Amino acid sequence: MGDNPDINEGTQFTPRFDQDGLIPAIAQDANTGEILMVAYMNAESLELTRKTGFAVYFSRSRKRLWKKGEESGHMQRIERILVDCDQDCLVLKVRVDSGQCHVGYQSCFYRALDPATGQLEFVADRVFDPASTYRKK
Amino acid sequence: MGDNPDINEGTQFTPRFDQDGLIPAIAQDANTGEILMVAYMNAESLELTRKTGFAVYFSRSRKRLWKKGEESGHMQRIERILVDCDQDCLVLKVRVDSGQCHVGYQSCFYRALDPATGQLEFVADRVFDPASTYRKK
Repeated sequence: MGDNPDINEGTQFTPRFDQDGLIPAIAQDANTGEILMVAYMNAESLELTRKTGFAVYFSRSRKRLWKKGEESGHMQRIERILVDCDQDCLVLKVRVDSGQCHVGYQSCFYRALDPATGQLEFVADRVFDPASTYRKK
Repeated sequence: MGDNPDINEGTQFTPRFDQDGLIPAIAQDANTGEILMVAYMNAESLELTRKTGFAVYFSRSRKRLWKKGEESGHMQRIERILVDCDQDCLVLKVRVDSGQCHVGYQSCFYRALDPATGQLEFVADRVFDPASTYRKK
């Protein structure tokens, strides 16, 4: 939260990148409302996302720009970019085909915590086989 | 993303906190699918959330535990906690009344980016008056 009215209540887009120059971006299926994944953007990937109309992230593990779907083909067409009150998080409303998670599920959030046992339970079915989608390097 | 099958495909809950001991948690309305807010949890707040059934975060600005709604009354009753493939992000499916954002909106994501102008436009209506909800300290 933050209480700067210029940031909270203004119309100027001033995304707040963290100390690594990144801002979290939540991809949400524009059709179903399902949260598909969370990734990070730097200023360049955000600009590319705006300009191209397709989600481009910054991969923290590979330390490079990552156009979602560049390997899998499962791209994200941007319908709308929302920003939160203190402008340190984005929601991308996206149009997708299927299989947004590299493990083979529609969403990365395919497991739920059982509060009683502290274990995870699978709450979704696989929609594709990662082995046949991602070529070996 | 990450490719450790124990993390990606196991049933053991091993949340990956960042260097500050925090993990992002997205609160999503269990009824409507609307993304309400994004906040952070440390291990203690996650444990309290699990045990009490209400969302407890760690406020990065106030550097303390923050039970959502402790001031405003707008609590979040947990319906389900989901974790993503590499276990570094949570989704909380929550039951709420109204006015989840401290600026007075149902969701913190009340502004959208106009890709043509780069300006924000308001896409939601205020649901409460913050001045009458939050008492002056």
